[in-house]
Amino acid sequence: MQLTSAEWTETEENIAKKAFDIAYKREIDDLIDSVKHKAVSLSAIDDMWHLHDFLSAKRHEVDGKYDYRLPMLVFVFAGLVKDGWLSLSELEGLNPDKIAKISALARM
Amino acid sequence: MQLTSAEWTETEENIAKKAFDIAYKREIDDLIDSVKHKAVSLSAIDDMWHLHDFLSAKRHEVDGKYDYRLPMLVFVFAGLVKDGWLSLSELEGLNPDKIAKISALARM
Repeated sequence: MQLTSAEWTETEENIAKKAFDIAYKREIDDLIDSVKHKAVSLSAIDDMWHLHDFLSAKRHEVDGKYDYRLPMLVFVFAGLVKDGWLSLSELEGLNPDKIAKISALARM
Repeated sequence: MQLTSAEWTETEENIAKKAFDIAYKREIDDLIDSVKHKAVSLSAIDDMWHLHDFLSAKRHEVDGKYDYRLPMLVFVFAGLVKDGWLSLSELEGLNPDKIAKISALARM
């Protein structure tokens, strides 16, 4: 299965960019809610350092995950679908072969 | 001026421990309030990473600052007085020579 070197048409790129941005906004909004929720119940220093550890991990994860380079997009989208930040229907309009690859990788 | 090798009586150690704990609690409580305040107004990812940077810096600072080893205490207390986390009156009962050293260092 050839995964990384598929061509992306301009239409596909537009769909991909939109889907990427939607998932990113969804995940970041969820993360902001989590941080606000955790912050409200801070009462001791350990809670604060746990929040710091949480933010360190999430920053690392988010920085690594949202990699908008065309050869990586199939993997990026598969991860986002797997983690529930994107649905396959939001990728509608991509070449069926790409959708099939993303869907298969997301089930792994 | 000899700063590090002064003897500490048991009474002085009790006063020092109490003052140390008071300053620590004061600074941590203030820090928790700051984090809660910052968290309430989080609205974008940059705010969240700024909060992360703020926590990283504070964790490093607090870990380094609250060093309860007797030879370091004069310096620790001087820093705490200088930064407003402790008043000299809360060190009352320490040897006047120690108070004078702490006071002089705090003004540097």
